[in-house]
Amino acid sequence: MAEKVVDLLCIGAGGAAYPAAFRLARAGRKVLMVDPKGVMSGNCLYEGCVPSKAVREMASLAGATRRFSTQLGRAELSAPDYAAIVQHKDQVQARRYAQHAQELAAQPGIELRKGVARILDPHTVQIDDDQGSEKIRCHHLLIASGSDVFVPPLPGAEHCLTSHDLYKPDPALRALPKRLIVVGGGYIGLETASFFAELGSQVILLQKGGQILNGMDPGMVALLQPLLPAGMRILTDVDVQRIEAQGALRRVLWQRAGQEESGEAEAVLLAVGRSPVIPEGCEAIGIEFDRHGVQVGPSLQTRYPHIYAAGDVNGRVPLFHAAVRQSLAAAHNILGGNQPLDYADFHNVPTTIFTLPAAAYIGMTPAKAAGRELAVGRYDFAEDSRAQILERLEGEIRLFFEPSSLRLLGGWIVGIDAGALIGQIGTALSLGATAYDLARFADQHPMSAEGIGKAARSLF
Amino acid sequence: MAEKVVDLLCIGAGGAAYPAAFRLARAGRKVLMVDPKGVMSGNCLYEGCVPSKAVREMASLAGATRRFSTQLGRAELSAPDYAAIVQHKDQVQARRYAQHAQELAAQPGIELRKGVARILDPHTVQIDDDQGSEKIRCHHLLIASGSDVFVPPLPGAEHCLTSHDLYKPDPALRALPKRLIVVGGGYIGLETASFFAELGSQVILLQKGGQILNGMDPGMVALLQPLLPAGMRILTDVDVQRIEAQGALRRVLWQRAGQEESGEAEAVLLAVGRSPVIPEGCEAIGIEFDRHGVQVGPSLQTRYPHIYAAGDVNGRVPLFHAAVRQSLAAAHNILGGNQPLDYADFHNVPTTIFTLPAAAYIGMTPAKAAGRELAVGRYDFAEDSRAQILERLEGEIRLFFEPSSLRLLGGWIVGIDAGALIGQIGTALSLGATAYDLARFADQHPMSAEGIGKAARSLF
Amino acid sequence: MAEKVVDLLCIGAGGAAYPAAFRLARAGRKVLMVDPKGVMSGNCLYEGCVPSKAVREMASLAGATRRFSTQLGRAELSAPDYAAIVQHKDQVQARRYAQHAQELAAQPGIELRKGVARILDPHTVQIDDDQGSEKIRCHHLLIASGSDVFVPPLPGAEHCLTSHDLYKPDPALRALPKRLIVVGGGYIGLETASFFAELGSQVILLQKGGQILNGMDPGMVALLQPLLPAGMRILTDVDVQRIEAQGALRRVLWQRAGQEESGEAEAVLLAVGRSPVIPEGCEAIGIEFDRHGVQVGPSLQTRYPHIYAAGDVNGRVPLFHAAVRQSLAAAHNILGGNQPLDYADFHNVPTTIFTLPAAAYIGMTPAKAAGRELAVGRYDFAEDSRAQILERLEGEIRLFFEPSSLRLLGGWIVGIDAGALIGQIGTALSLGATAYDLARFADQHPMSAEGIGKAARSLF
Amino acid sequence: MAEKVVDLLCIGAGGAAYPAAFRLARAGRKVLMVDPKGVMSGNCLYEGCVPSKAVREMASLAGATRRFSTQLGRAELSAPDYAAIVQHKDQVQARRYAQHAQELAAQPGIELRKGVARILDPHTVQIDDDQGSEKIRCHHLLIASGSDVFVPPLPGAEHCLTSHDLYKPDPALRALPKRLIVVGGGYIGLETASFFAELGSQVILLQKGGQILNGMDPGMVALLQPLLPAGMRILTDVDVQRIEAQGALRRVLWQRAGQEESGEAEAVLLAVGRSPVIPEGCEAIGIEFDRHGVQVGPSLQTRYPHIYAAGDVNGRVPLFHAAVRQSLAAAHNILGGNQPLDYADFHNVPTTIFTLPAAAYIGMTPAKAAGRELAVGRYDFAEDSRAQILERLEGEIRLFFEPSSLRLLGGWIVGIDAGALIGQIGTALSLGATAYDLARFADQHPMSAEGIGKAARSLF
Repeated sequence: MAEKVVDLLCIGAGGAAYPAAFRLARAGRKVLMVDPKGVMSGNCLYEGCVPSKAVREMASLAGATRRFSTQLGRAELSAPDYAAIVQHKDQVQARRYAQHAQELAAQPGIELRKGVARILDPHTVQIDDDQGSEKIRCHHLLIASGSDVFVPPLPGAEHCLTSHDLYKPDPALRALPKRLIVVGGGYIGLETASFFAELGSQVILLQKGGQILNGMDPGMVALLQPLLPAGMRILTDVDVQRIEAQGALRRVLWQRAGQEESGEAEAVLLAVGRSPVIPEGCEAIGIEFDRHGVQVGPSLQTRYPHIYAAGDVNGRVPLFHAAVRQSLAAAHNILGGNQPLDYADFHNVPTTIFTLPAAAYIGMTPAKAAGRELAVGRYDFAEDSRAQILERLEGEIRLFFEPSSLRLLGGWIVGIDAGALIGQIGTALSLGATAYDLARFADQHPMSAEGIGKAARSLF
Repeated sequence: MAEKVVDLLCIGAGGAAYPAAFRLARAGRKVLMVDPKGVMSGNCLYEGCVPSKAVREMASLAGATRRFSTQLGRAELSAPDYAAIVQHKDQVQARRYAQHAQELAAQPGIELRKGVARILDPHTVQIDDDQGSEKIRCHHLLIASGSDVFVPPLPGAEHCLTSHDLYKPDPALRALPKRLIVVGGGYIGLETASFFAELGSQVILLQKGGQILNGMDPGMVALLQPLLPAGMRILTDVDVQRIEAQGALRRVLWQRAGQEESGEAEAVLLAVGRSPVIPEGCEAIGIEFDRHGVQVGPSLQTRYPHIYAAGDVNGRVPLFHAAVRQSLAAAHNILGGNQPLDYADFHNVPTTIFTLPAAAYIGMTPAKAAGRELAVGRYDFAEDSRAQILERLEGEIRLFFEPSSLRLLGGWIVGIDAGALIGQIGTALSLGATAYDLARFADQHPMSAEGIGKAARSLF
Repeated sequence: MAEKVVDLLCIGAGGAAYPAAFRLARAGRKVLMVDPKGVMSGNCLYEGCVPSKAVREMASLAGATRRFSTQLGRAELSAPDYAAIVQHKDQVQARRYAQHAQELAAQPGIELRKGVARILDPHTVQIDDDQGSEKIRCHHLLIASGSDVFVPPLPGAEHCLTSHDLYKPDPALRALPKRLIVVGGGYIGLETASFFAELGSQVILLQKGGQILNGMDPGMVALLQPLLPAGMRILTDVDVQRIEAQGALRRVLWQRAGQEESGEAEAVLLAVGRSPVIPEGCEAIGIEFDRHGVQVGPSLQTRYPHIYAAGDVNGRVPLFHAAVRQSLAAAHNILGGNQPLDYADFHNVPTTIFTLPAAAYIGMTPAKAAGRELAVGRYDFAEDSRAQILERLEGEIRLFFEPSSLRLLGGWIVGIDAGALIGQIGTALSLGATAYDLARFADQHPMSAEGIGKAARSLF
Repeated sequence: MAEKVVDLLCIGAGGAAYPAAFRLARAGRKVLMVDPKGVMSGNCLYEGCVPSKAVREMASLAGATRRFSTQLGRAELSAPDYAAIVQHKDQVQARRYAQHAQELAAQPGIELRKGVARILDPHTVQIDDDQGSEKIRCHHLLIASGSDVFVPPLPGAEHCLTSHDLYKPDPALRALPKRLIVVGGGYIGLETASFFAELGSQVILLQKGGQILNGMDPGMVALLQPLLPAGMRILTDVDVQRIEAQGALRRVLWQRAGQEESGEAEAVLLAVGRSPVIPEGCEAIGIEFDRHGVQVGPSLQTRYPHIYAAGDVNGRVPLFHAAVRQSLAAAHNILGGNQPLDYADFHNVPTTIFTLPAAAYIGMTPAKAAGRELAVGRYDFAEDSRAQILERLEGEIRLFFEPSSLRLLGGWIVGIDAGALIGQIGTALSLGATAYDLARFADQHPMSAEGIGKAARSLF
């Protein structure tokens, strides 16, 4: 029997895969996506950004109704219904899965197979599924296998939940734990900790190093941390020893400053990182990768010009929207005959920590400036109309400019609307804006974006 | 006694006045602002954008809690407390007045006088206040007297409320009217109608012409109108005859399609427009103005190079943030010795109709294109992650480009986050962005700004 | 015998064809170019821009040595040697043909056939050449057949030279005519007239309408005309009747202002326009075209998504560099599977009239503004250091801006370095620059580009 | 007698002084410039860029007439007449001085005094001239005293010429030296060496270190050096010992690689650098300076907010056009009341070495990248139409981009039109252009700017 031949085989069907798949299919190319889940969107929709934001928005709303309970006509507040929140989350996921299924059905030329892909040679991939194995020949290969929760070899790790257990469709956890211990102060742990604290849990977060959000700008983190919900206790420089199960309860034991300490909770979230999923066969054909992922440059090409790696699996910018952009760049370069038509920008990608409140940043911040002098424009939300209307006076917008050209190099927002404002700042950055440009734009009043112009104007 | 001499006299102390005043004072110049209210910020803070948005955000929150009442743990919803909402609004205003007072006190070189200004000659202004009259000599004059509610000669107009009565500090209306009739379908009437409808009033809005939001793009308005709250009934081509008072009740009588019709309500809002406040003396010294306002070009100069007019009084872009920008441009030009250093952009100013949901636009839309062909990029919120999380699937982002260069010329948003997204689109517009640029930017997921990139990508 | 199949068939091998051909070949596609000349570069290299500029630079140098004969140490000047100039021109052409032949040989995947192409159906083209006929099947078709000299039905036209006769390799005219009559005041006629006048011919140029360079901005033309070489006499509103041969002499007879007039010359150049070369078969398959060319939009696609038309044949911007850009855009769109990846900008293309001195323009100028107000920045070369050093004080730089945003909309240069300066202005235009941006750039001193910044600064 | 009071006192009347002076005068301010020459334009016009370029263009023309002597009809070439070239240079200078005098006379509010300024206190300057001394009180002070030729303590230095002796009006040297020795391989020495070599002198250039154009990118210098005129011999790692006069002849003695060497010439040019001219009194009032100049940041302010230093005297970017830009920025900041309105960009200033042929660069080049990876776009003039027409095939355009965003960071040109092309590249850089932008622009054919687009396209 003749081998099946496709123009593009995508290992994965998430944000790094399907934008390329659709673009090539629209160009008349034959595409096959192989994914162990058998559905589009990867971990982002399955257990990542979308479901966590569905929980987040409910927690945020619960906080707002608490703040304005008088205006809303409620003398006494009832507690949020976590089961209903999970149901909402499940519905959001179900709706998007249905929508993606429709999109797939509507686009000729793409097939999605549930299965596991193994690279046999640079142009051949074997797919293993319930039905058996099949070899597929492909003109181009896009490695878009994403990343998975990293579970460290910690005694009792099996007693912990991961983000998977919290956010996947029909998750295990359906009741709000009275107490939650979060192991890991990266953005996933920190976001979840803040949601549950806002919803009423008592939360302890344990961070190995001296700073939460390790790798992000300490200046920004120092602004964010005090604004996190009152119900959150953050411990740093913690060395977690083990987790013990005591019936439905969990006990986490750790060392801190030479002391043994422990905490008890109804649930423990283990969130110490994610690892790229390197498809089998990569090593055999000599594709270079390390623990961060498959090595690619901005054209997303591996050492084989026709083999691309996009999204979390290359470890460059492990964010869904970066994956989408990389996927499209890879698609453009495949269309270009592996002679690049497009490059993915690894530096100027907006990153939001969707805690309550959130922080967001893009581009160069002082910690990345490596001693380079920066001109700084600032705006405090304390003076912001919208912040005052929402009674969220904390936080700021800070912009960083090259001091003589005043070209925008980066910025951050801590506080209200961070996830929206970073879009405007990032757009300006991607367009090569200067402080002069930003200062001349009449930002909509009374919106928090006024602070962008005002931060720029603080230089004049 | 020697006449007092100042570098700059501002007639008004609102958004068109104080940014210039502060900039000049920081430059060491002596500034006097004269305002009948005796406080900074003009009608925007007194009865305009800020208090109306304080009410809006409470109405918006009430709607959200209704939509997610199960998740918030409330089987039965209580009605919003309008008196408490007014109290919140009053507090927001009080906080900002206090803040402005502090800013004023902290800045040497600016004096703010409560009083009425009359221009005697191009360099002399008389101030009349409780203490009497004083003549002031000024090197530069900034006419920033704003606009006021226009009350037409309509029988029974005195039985109506205006936006002033709703939004000023300690306003008359402190209880939610069961029924509200709004005369006038401009943005003020429409916004207020939507707030009250969302809070539970039955609202009828009467519009003289065939289209609400007269002067805005009919395509955008047609998208917005069906999304407005269910409790709002909009009648167009209405000729209001008179308003009658029947105790606490009001009856509005109108003609429509040749028929006499009427409606009864606890309150009637008259919102048929605003008129510029032309200071006394303008005509005498030959400053040109018409019913739209004082005539100025982008340098904000009148026929006298040292006399400027900024903000609502010039009628060019009657929005607070446009006034602020114009004020700064005027300040820069005064600093430049009346040889322009800066020009105000009259075309690319974001405009948001803060209805629930909102619509926003900027730049060129089909109605303004005068037959010019436009390339159009679209994105429906129905497919948007955040819209789905918030269960607000209605509306869209639409972008307009020059068809061969793909330079962004304008855009609109109807639906979620309109007032925030317009900032990002407007920033792109002000920077001369193309669809190529927007398509390459990796917008934050899962935020509604993803739709901006996707709208651009719809051209490729 | 099986039909030959190619990915792309280009009808033509000029600037609208070969950039696409090479890009697709680099992407691994099989490409066939068919051209009656059998060489790359079309009329531009054969008889257009390149050879005419080779003559121009010699004429320009002759003028400069005349101006600075004292400094160059020559009391008495000899006359330029036109035969040697032609030889130089021929060498330039030969060198480029050799270079193009090398490029072609070095690029696998492209074949160039000398022959004439006839479209049989949307995917089949017949090639007729010395060997006979062959049918080729093509996945995509790029109509890039260019334009040809238009010879009007004028009695005695056969006694005239065309640009073909002047500029082709090894041309007929190899001695400088003492007198030259040019029929037609478009850019080709005008450029040639100025070269010959600068070289020492007495030139009369006859223009049918009231303005030379018909279709270009009258304001710019009015600045250019008086700067043209002294030896040129321009007559407008001329109705040429016929050309008569009298041995080696030619007599042109025309009517002007109701009078019969005539002139005698050693040579007559007929330069009244160019016509698109519509390949046979276009009409049969329903491709739309008119006398200006094949109708396409910015994606360069005809009504068949896989059939493109680029360059002079579409009549949009009949300039070599526009053809190159369109060719690349077409290539990108072919790579994109006929789903556009790229659009050609028809409005912002630099256009230089390479007269001595030259004029150049781009974008919007007053004549195209259709009543729209423009802010104008000016700079006179009379004050320019480099102009003074070169003793070419005539002319100016003029920039046009939208009056409130100060966004650059267009500009022109008349005088020194016009063809170079238009690149800087055009780059700024294509990047969405404002007068603020241009005013802040420190242009190199003492170069004529200083005038760009100074023109912008004239607004401040 | 009352002290004279001015708004701005400029120490100097060159490019760092008069743009500010005129801008402030146009704003109605009273300005006094004090300059030892008593005329505007400083050393640039007196002995710098303008006169050297007047000589350069004649040398360039001489080279071109040599290259195209056949076409120009000259079998035997006469030698250039250096005395006539000097006369041309003198006329250019005279014309500009006259023009500047007219501009000064036409602008009310500016006075220019011939004299020497001494700072007595931060607001008082004493002027010493032929008439005596006067104290002037000034609200703002602009130190714009420029730089002067640095004459090192070298035995026999008095037997050398400096650029002053070559280029000032009515200079000493009026005959072409048969042999010229240039001590110093900075841009002044190198330019002059190339002019004289092109005019027919035998030139030896002695450079102390291992690289000419010390401080510039070695990669660019390595490209330029072999292109310099054949008559130039460059020796590096030379330690000049002394210069001896032998009648009209000069002998230069130096050590190289441990050997004593010497050379004889009709003239020796000493061009080892320039030093800032620090006005007397700076040290006393505590203005910080070092051997590079007065310390200022991009606002041009010293430690006294009202005292500015612009141009060569601050040593940031010692080029005339940088001085002009800095002068304007200082003017804007003075107008802003010493609260900056404007900042000078110290990094993105075009720099041209006007040798024959020239080289030019801007922004970041590999030598400044400090290990940062750069994406490189290249274009060789060997393939350039215009280069072929001019028979100047040497050199290249090279562009440097950030590898993932493809934002333009810098570039250089070596070869034809370098001084013009740097304007286009610099404009793009100042506007935040990307390789995508440059690749889409249709550069004018057949001009050397085509290479800019092609260099960008080499990445795709």
